[in-house]
Amino acid sequence: MTSNSTPKISRRALEMPQNAIRHLVPLAEAAERRGVHVHRLNIGQPDIVTPPELSAPLESSLPSVFAYGHSAGDLSLRRALRNDLARVGAQVHEDDILVTHGASEALTFALTALCDAGDEVLTPDPTYANYLGFSASLGVGLRPIPTFAEDRWALPSTLGDRVNSKTRAILLSNPGNPTGAFYSREVLSGLLQAARRHDLWLIVDEVYRGLVFGEHPAYSALSLDDPEHRVIVVESTSKRYSTCGLRIGALVTRNAAIREATMSFAQARLSCSVLSQQMVAQIDTLDEDAREAITNTYRERLALTHELLATIPGVYAPPAEGAFYQMATLPVRDASRFVRFLVEEFSCDGETVLVAPAAGFYLDPTRGIDQIRIACVLGLDSLRAALRCLAAGLRAYLAAHPDQGVGAPPPRAT
Amino acid sequence: MTSNSTPKISRRALEMPQNAIRHLVPLAEAAERRGVHVHRLNIGQPDIVTPPELSAPLESSLPSVFAYGHSAGDLSLRRALRNDLARVGAQVHEDDILVTHGASEALTFALTALCDAGDEVLTPDPTYANYLGFSASLGVGLRPIPTFAEDRWALPSTLGDRVNSKTRAILLSNPGNPTGAFYSREVLSGLLQAARRHDLWLIVDEVYRGLVFGEHPAYSALSLDDPEHRVIVVESTSKRYSTCGLRIGALVTRNAAIREATMSFAQARLSCSVLSQQMVAQIDTLDEDAREAITNTYRERLALTHELLATIPGVYAPPAEGAFYQMATLPVRDASRFVRFLVEEFSCDGETVLVAPAAGFYLDPTRGIDQIRIACVLGLDSLRAALRCLAAGLRAYLAAHPDQGVGAPPPRAT
Repeated sequence: MTSNSTPKISRRALEMPQNAIRHLVPLAEAAERRGVHVHRLNIGQPDIVTPPELSAPLESSLPSVFAYGHSAGDLSLRRALRNDLARVGAQVHEDDILVTHGASEALTFALTALCDAGDEVLTPDPTYANYLGFSASLGVGLRPIPTFAEDRWALPSTLGDRVNSKTRAILLSNPGNPTGAFYSREVLSGLLQAARRHDLWLIVDEVYRGLVFGEHPAYSALSLDDPEHRVIVVESTSKRYSTCGLRIGALVTRNAAIREATMSFAQARLSCSVLSQQMVAQIDTLDEDAREAITNTYRERLALTHELLATIPGVYAPPAEGAFYQMATLPVRDASRFVRFLVEEFSCDGETVLVAPAAGFYLDPTRGIDQIRIACVLGLDSLRAALRCLAAGLRAYLAAHPDQGVGAPPPRAT
Repeated sequence: MTSNSTPKISRRALEMPQNAIRHLVPLAEAAERRGVHVHRLNIGQPDIVTPPELSAPLESSLPSVFAYGHSAGDLSLRRALRNDLARVGAQVHEDDILVTHGASEALTFALTALCDAGDEVLTPDPTYANYLGFSASLGVGLRPIPTFAEDRWALPSTLGDRVNSKTRAILLSNPGNPTGAFYSREVLSGLLQAARRHDLWLIVDEVYRGLVFGEHPAYSALSLDDPEHRVIVVESTSKRYSTCGLRIGALVTRNAAIREATMSFAQARLSCSVLSQQMVAQIDTLDEDAREAITNTYRERLALTHELLATIPGVYAPPAEGAFYQMATLPVRDASRFVRFLVEEFSCDGETVLVAPAAGFYLDPTRGIDQIRIACVLGLDSLRAALRCLAAGLRAYLAAHPDQGVGAPPPRAT
């Protein structure tokens, strides 16, 4: 008997979560076709110029045969990444570093090495939306550790009954996407102690490492006291050096078993782009001023964003301490509906703004419905214009849809 | 109670197979340190110069911000890949093409979309060694369809009782790695019919598409009669255009459910290297002569390799019909031990040769133990020297280890 339809696709494919951000992009594109300028603050794609020093080698030293690179990554790049970690006080060996197709692959490798299908990982909620996709594709469950804007996204002092026999690891980004929270060395040490008590791994996504703006200095989880080598760092140069499109990340661990397992995954996929690696290895040649300039750019942008949000009635947005995201609670019932309004129905002097509804970052489907995440990836003038659109759009939305406002406004941003 | 050791790593990580080829590389490196020149015919890394046309855009049009590309791949690259398929008679739409980090990621996406942990995939045995790694990391079982050099690696006429309730797909490379077999359009149509009867997907790895040397013309499985869109093609420009290190591949399917599922995986990892994509998109500018030159280069190399193998007593090696690999059965008990001998103990005029023991390509642990795979990735002079080393090494090995020879030599190569 010949089948006239195809078999079903896998459960894990069916269970892949909808991407919380990208589905609004077609609406923004439609607005642009109508002639509306859309300030895009929805994804973490910075406008920062990639340092020209990085592309210099492409002018002089391209290979004649673009052969596979080393599966662990080109040595010059691994040394550059090692030196980058040393700058924040983490001493690792170049062999502790596995170069990956962005932090995405590093995270996939880490979850695959630590978890079988059915296992679980704890993560602060809200969390980076793509963690949901990676874990779903691997059949790994994510269990939320609730955190709240009102507490500056503080972690609870114990993991409590969230840990069960299936729990394998704690996963968080620090500085945090989407929250902009930055957990200090002391706080993360406490989390590592909790991981030790429950015999869990600790995966720290340090894609935004160095982009910190408060009283606590930048550091890496690899500089914590970690006698069993329980910490696995996932990182990328995408955000810190504006190399998103080069797709170069890394998995860093002193743990030999994890190194061996992830190296076997890396060997199966042969290598990363040698061309991208050649460029990113040049981060080692940048001077400290170039690095500081990038951090200072985001510091200014976040300060401005916070200042402007504080002037919008009913908005609650405690200041971000790291990364380049600002979460904001809006005086609306459904921020997703409001964001659609901004790109589908609203414009202000021919402009509007696209932000990310925050619900897509929450594992708990009842939370974040009145929140947005603003990615401060545009310059100060654009941010001013974008926040003007947000404020005007909010007034217009509440006037047109009075049933969509919330009654008593929450406390003003501080 | 604080744990003083780390938790175990996952079962799937523990079950990752050893890479069959790479573990010999340190031995070859040691030989090189002793001053022995090692002709490396162990992996599919061609020496062919990457067409200089591909890197031309790097000289004139680098972006100032290396931003994320489109998750499906840059449009110009997808159009170039579409045109490349059209040249062998497969008409697909650019939206049927998802650009991936090499064929490796395309295969991982396909297996993830089709299979849950515990499901099974049929594949001709021997098979591409890294299929074992990809499927192990996803918890998918590979079940062998035995094929034999003596039958020119012919597929059986039915799948028989190899199909069970867990079987989801058939996976094969065509032209084949490691066999060099090329299944004609008629043969593959028969396999697709079998897939229809058993309601399975058919994944065809066409990384070596176009590199065919016999009576049957090159084609793509996407040109077969496939009313349900059951065929998924995995491909890469690595081998055909010598772009291995750029890590650009693709998953091509007309099946909407698979497209949607794999696109959600692609969105989670954001994009491929925009720099690599920019280069590979230039394959569209190459003239037909450039393409034919590459095919002709491999035709000559495989013909020479076959001719020289036929002069070595006791070697059985029917000619390869595609890709750039030649399998050979040697008159030894353990080809792996012989290959180690070649790089550890032997040299001939200061030279030796590294080939891949074929056992690593077999799912059945009892097969392929007396076979090697030769990757014809070096020029004719190097191949001559390498085959001279192989013949001399074989004589030396059998003289030194008479217990390691086989009694009656098998039939000579034809």
